[in-house]
Amino acid sequence: MTPKQEEAVFKKLDELRIELPSWAFANTGTRFGKFIDASAATTIEEKLADAAEVNRFTGCCPSVAVHVLWDFPNGVESAAPAAQAAEKLGVRIGSVSPNVFQDQEYKYGSLANPSADIRKKALDHILDSIAIAKAAGSRDITPWFTDGSNYPGTAHMRQHKRWFEAGLRTAHEALSPDQRLLIEYKPFEPAFYHTDIADWGMALVLAKAAGNQAKVLVDTGHHYQTQNIEQIVAWLLDENMLGGFHLNDRRFADDDLTLGSIDPYQVFRIFHEICFFEWEQGRPADVAIMVDQSHNLKPKAEEMLQTVMMAQNIFAKAAIVDHARLTREQAACNLIDAEECMQDAFQTDVRPVVEEWRRMRGLAANPLKAFRESGYLSRVIAERAGRAQAVSSYA
Amino acid sequence: MTPKQEEAVFKKLDELRIELPSWAFANTGTRFGKFIDASAATTIEEKLADAAEVNRFTGCCPSVAVHVLWDFPNGVESAAPAAQAAEKLGVRIGSVSPNVFQDQEYKYGSLANPSADIRKKALDHILDSIAIAKAAGSRDITPWFTDGSNYPGTAHMRQHKRWFEAGLRTAHEALSPDQRLLIEYKPFEPAFYHTDIADWGMALVLAKAAGNQAKVLVDTGHHYQTQNIEQIVAWLLDENMLGGFHLNDRRFADDDLTLGSIDPYQVFRIFHEICFFEWEQGRPADVAIMVDQSHNLKPKAEEMLQTVMMAQNIFAKAAIVDHARLTREQAACNLIDAEECMQDAFQTDVRPVVEEWRRMRGLAANPLKAFRESGYLSRVIAERAGRAQAVSSYA
Amino acid sequence: MTPKQEEAVFKKLDELRIELPSWAFANTGTRFGKFIDASAATTIEEKLADAAEVNRFTGCCPSVAVHVLWDFPNGVESAAPAAQAAEKLGVRIGSVSPNVFQDQEYKYGSLANPSADIRKKALDHILDSIAIAKAAGSRDITPWFTDGSNYPGTAHMRQHKRWFEAGLRTAHEALSPDQRLLIEYKPFEPAFYHTDIADWGMALVLAKAAGNQAKVLVDTGHHYQTQNIEQIVAWLLDENMLGGFHLNDRRFADDDLTLGSIDPYQVFRIFHEICFFEWEQGRPADVAIMVDQSHNLKPKAEEMLQTVMMAQNIFAKAAIVDHARLTREQAACNLIDAEECMQDAFQTDVRPVVEEWRRMRGLAANPLKAFRESGYLSRVIAERAGRAQAVSSYA
Amino acid sequence: MTPKQEEAVFKKLDELRIELPSWAFANTGTRFGKFIDASAATTIEEKLADAAEVNRFTGCCPSVAVHVLWDFPNGVESAAPAAQAAEKLGVRIGSVSPNVFQDQEYKYGSLANPSADIRKKALDHILDSIAIAKAAGSRDITPWFTDGSNYPGTAHMRQHKRWFEAGLRTAHEALSPDQRLLIEYKPFEPAFYHTDIADWGMALVLAKAAGNQAKVLVDTGHHYQTQNIEQIVAWLLDENMLGGFHLNDRRFADDDLTLGSIDPYQVFRIFHEICFFEWEQGRPADVAIMVDQSHNLKPKAEEMLQTVMMAQNIFAKAAIVDHARLTREQAACNLIDAEECMQDAFQTDVRPVVEEWRRMRGLAANPLKAFRESGYLSRVIAERAGRAQAVSSYA
Repeated sequence: MTPKQEEAVFKKLDELRIELPSWAFANTGTRFGKFIDASAATTIEEKLADAAEVNRFTGCCPSVAVHVLWDFPNGVESAAPAAQAAEKLGVRIGSVSPNVFQDQEYKYGSLANPSADIRKKALDHILDSIAIAKAAGSRDITPWFTDGSNYPGTAHMRQHKRWFEAGLRTAHEALSPDQRLLIEYKPFEPAFYHTDIADWGMALVLAKAAGNQAKVLVDTGHHYQTQNIEQIVAWLLDENMLGGFHLNDRRFADDDLTLGSIDPYQVFRIFHEICFFEWEQGRPADVAIMVDQSHNLKPKAEEMLQTVMMAQNIFAKAAIVDHARLTREQAACNLIDAEECMQDAFQTDVRPVVEEWRRMRGLAANPLKAFRESGYLSRVIAERAGRAQAVSSYA
Repeated sequence: MTPKQEEAVFKKLDELRIELPSWAFANTGTRFGKFIDASAATTIEEKLADAAEVNRFTGCCPSVAVHVLWDFPNGVESAAPAAQAAEKLGVRIGSVSPNVFQDQEYKYGSLANPSADIRKKALDHILDSIAIAKAAGSRDITPWFTDGSNYPGTAHMRQHKRWFEAGLRTAHEALSPDQRLLIEYKPFEPAFYHTDIADWGMALVLAKAAGNQAKVLVDTGHHYQTQNIEQIVAWLLDENMLGGFHLNDRRFADDDLTLGSIDPYQVFRIFHEICFFEWEQGRPADVAIMVDQSHNLKPKAEEMLQTVMMAQNIFAKAAIVDHARLTREQAACNLIDAEECMQDAFQTDVRPVVEEWRRMRGLAANPLKAFRESGYLSRVIAERAGRAQAVSSYA
Repeated sequence: MTPKQEEAVFKKLDELRIELPSWAFANTGTRFGKFIDASAATTIEEKLADAAEVNRFTGCCPSVAVHVLWDFPNGVESAAPAAQAAEKLGVRIGSVSPNVFQDQEYKYGSLANPSADIRKKALDHILDSIAIAKAAGSRDITPWFTDGSNYPGTAHMRQHKRWFEAGLRTAHEALSPDQRLLIEYKPFEPAFYHTDIADWGMALVLAKAAGNQAKVLVDTGHHYQTQNIEQIVAWLLDENMLGGFHLNDRRFADDDLTLGSIDPYQVFRIFHEICFFEWEQGRPADVAIMVDQSHNLKPKAEEMLQTVMMAQNIFAKAAIVDHARLTREQAACNLIDAEECMQDAFQTDVRPVVEEWRRMRGLAANPLKAFRESGYLSRVIAERAGRAQAVSSYA
Repeated sequence: MTPKQEEAVFKKLDELRIELPSWAFANTGTRFGKFIDASAATTIEEKLADAAEVNRFTGCCPSVAVHVLWDFPNGVESAAPAAQAAEKLGVRIGSVSPNVFQDQEYKYGSLANPSADIRKKALDHILDSIAIAKAAGSRDITPWFTDGSNYPGTAHMRQHKRWFEAGLRTAHEALSPDQRLLIEYKPFEPAFYHTDIADWGMALVLAKAAGNQAKVLVDTGHHYQTQNIEQIVAWLLDENMLGGFHLNDRRFADDDLTLGSIDPYQVFRIFHEICFFEWEQGRPADVAIMVDQSHNLKPKAEEMLQTVMMAQNIFAKAAIVDHARLTREQAACNLIDAEECMQDAFQTDVRPVVEEWRRMRGLAANPLKAFRESGYLSRVIAERAGRAQAVSSYA
């Protein structure tokens, strides 16, 4: 690697902030059940502690995304204590996700429920979440909506769209000037025939209807097979409508696997679009980088460390693409040479330079190894293991 | 419809037996939670009662598929009482599904678990299930295996295959001469990188390794997008390796939706392959027709009635295909005319003839309507509603 | 069927106009070659004659879509003669498709080619096409762009987007006030890594950038597997951005198969969204219904008749959905009953009523049968068969 | 990289033989046309010359796969001259592909054509191909069949299967004892509803029916989306039924892109299964490694060099996986550590060691660069450019 490339890696790593999701430290599973991890966190305090540990060893995860229902049982009252707990641990509360899909009244939808009462309940919960975000000092509200239908004919799709436009517009009005509303899309699951916000085009239409602080959130696992995610990222950047990412990997559906575990070259291409945009603009893109994974089988904190390290490695690879050469080769239609700009960077082993960056910043060269040696895991397993774990049966 | 076509419909409806799954009457959901249905069954007695009601109104569902873990908490001791309970209700115990995926020890697999102890435990459970099936007078053992892995490199795929060959061979040896072992395949979920029995080819290889009473089970929702299910059915019929079906519909993944709710023409083509084979052979195919659906949103028993009626309608359409004309047009490469044999049958409204058949057999013309008027649903809601329902949270 | 339903069918069939594509009467194939049909048309005159024959027997296909490169070898000079030839045959020139993908200079793109000269050449061709459309009295310009790339890194996706915005804006300025520019999208083929206008969201962004006479064109075969086309139709209708359809069916990729040959229920759901919208609005939707199919194996004109008859049948089914009941059941979340509104209509055999409509309008009850009996096919085979047919080899 | 790893890389590179397809040096395209490359080869002599050049710079491509129709216009008489021409260029004739899909009589199929005459013609051509292979000293016969159908009902799928069993059995009887018949599968294209040999299970059934010198050929681009190719490879290895590969990459369909250009980690996992098997067996797997790509846009010979270099790099990565550690971590269910065995190898930059191997074997460190500097390309462009190129139009 050339000194210039090393510099580019250092610069990117210095800038990079990765937000961890509180729910990734809890036990999650599939519809067929959960396999219990003895170290899994249950309370918001435990989740913050685990996230802080990941931040301690990686130095780049200063904030924790929270889910209101699971993390703030008392709503806005829970916000300040949580923010203080986070602060003590050296992290802060990040994006705030309302939950309008788990309660029984959301069986037939939330903001697009045919019942005006339930639409109002959902909207109120979102407004509460915005208030919580204000109280916790959070910038981004990140609602994910499961509204849709399982069978043709059972939902009025245009009417749903109009209900969403109305609800999101009202939510947008409650934002403070520095807050953002990030609209996430997902093709299916839990809805199996149609999902109201199924793709980036629908999220874009709704974000524009909501107001100019609304942007689109790209969850890498929420796409059709074969869909070109990096192109969507490029278009949203060009439209100034990319709010942020929920990072994960997948093979079949929304598998919520470890970033880069299935298709690292795709992750590289996505990160490349960001770095390429930043190189052209001469400034960092204002895009939130968040993780959203569910670890059914791997130990939670270890998998999160693995994820952060993978994200750093792949961002480092994206940072060393020779953008000037790339644009020249693209303009000349030298396909093989243009492609080589990408492949050269991807094939480069950036791990030594990333490790050097860690040492220069006072961090362990291998955060996962250091975490394992720290004894944290066995300590929390001892603390948490006695707990009764409710495990639900499929049927 | 011609008299000859009506006769073909009557014959097919007289032959058709559809097995209902006990678990379709229970509350099921997605990984994001369950929406509770007040009428849902909990005990094996309730499930049998609901299934018997569906049989009472349709006259074609004399057996109920059971899942050992959920329905036989005391193993083989539960078999005889359940069989008697079924008999009183006018139904009988059908196929028996072992469950080697829900307990915590199956986190890393069952018959292909790296631990010999857990492989043995899984095998013992399957042997118990075979004993239960014998005690209950059931012919088919229908194990479904979730073994696989979520991340590249974490499982030894060839070793897994060999463990499966060994385990299934042992299970096969325990069968009585009239029993069958049906090997089901599924590409993914809950495993998200590789599933040990992922497709019909793998199920076929394992069935042949297990022994000649082992056949392949086709779950219509367990296929890759675009895969031609009717062709697989045709090949398995030609190889004399088709054991039976788990019927359902889907759009995205294994959505377990109501049969025919998404792609009724595909269901027609699958049923056509059976009827076409039977026409050529001059005898019914020895293929078990079972339903396997999960109704997250629709009322359970009503959805099962809807399913059975749809299956009857589509089998009636398949029965009136003009097979002699079809083979002539196929042989002459008259594409449009051959296709028309299929489309004519599919476009025919068979409902009046199916209703006539029901009346002639002493059944209500519209089973769903008759069920709704019977008051059964409100009665069981009253009985079951008071019950505490455990609802698990995603995270 | 009730008299009210019959009336609804008659009304819909009276309104329905289906535009036929000139290229569907020519020999087309796959990359592995073309199988020559002795009756296939070669010249614009032959294509118009064949299309006129389909119109003569169906009475609903008054216009013919043309492809400039294939049908107007002399550009705008060819327009008036073609229009006159069409008029003599009782049809007219419909939508005009520029062709900026076949010539060698488009190897690296058209409106997004890195070469300014080629971008200008492509734009000029589109402007010529608009002039041709004016000369031929056509309303819709329907460009399809293959611009994209086959390998990561070889194209600058944001730059491509901006070139498209500029080119389409200029094209839009050349429209007369009653003309429209319809922007088509397609995920892949012939580009295999990224396509510049890959989905409806990209087409929407570009249509809005081009001007208010630009709308989106939905080709039913141009979607990701599992994508909900009827939902996209519903959203575009609600946004007043749906310009028209290219109808066909497919199973795997852009297979360009006969409409309804693979998934007729999906076609029904798409047509339902149009009829449902029209019922709510109380007026017909301003949406062009065009066919775009490639018949590799079936005789061309016969397959086109089959397509038109299928479209009429399925529109007839969509016309008899009980919209008032549907909205009531949707509002009450009666899933099974709402679904039944759809299924009742789809299961109804509309063929007798469609045939009655044909007889009342002075048409043959079965257009395909009447065409076959007319002797047209053997006449054109005799005329066209002597011709040398160039057949290209794959490699 | 450790010395032991370097040794493993050297050993693998010494063993690795990659067969190049003659047709990859010719102009190919999509159904929408071909973009002509001035350097493309037309005759078998030109194709052999180009392939020999690739071999000259890479040292690992001693054989050239041929397609009878395109390369042996005079059938078996062409075999000896071609073999001699190859020998002069330092290469030899590799696998022989019959072509029973391009001629007009194969419109409705080859070995499964309803016409006995055409089935015989196809079989005769395959028998000729076996004779050609014998005359040219080739081991593998590699037929690819496009038989199938485009519309439901137009083909008798079980009858097709039986015709294939009969035809392949007869072909198998004509093999000399050291020859092999490799059965390739493909889900679709050019058939768009069903393909007779659609997946590895069907190829396996037919190979077993044909005889014990019949094996399965895996074309990496011929799979369903999300299908786990490396698992299929593992199963075929375990069944001793893997004959060889047609290597390429793809994103959407059978895109025939450069190996590793879309998903290099998947290629790595496939190669890993081979290396892992070889490590366990202690001997090389008897598997033919062939390339099968179509380069619409890239210069042909350069792209082939790029492909071979990519294959070498990825095999080198697969060679350095720590198999002993991998099996230990798999056995212990240490998921993260097992996964790390794979990721460590994949992240390693093997290019310096591969270049060192080339220098030690007397080859240029960068074959593509050396080829570009050799002047070969400009020489053949001059020779070949004057030629008239037939370009076919889509419609």
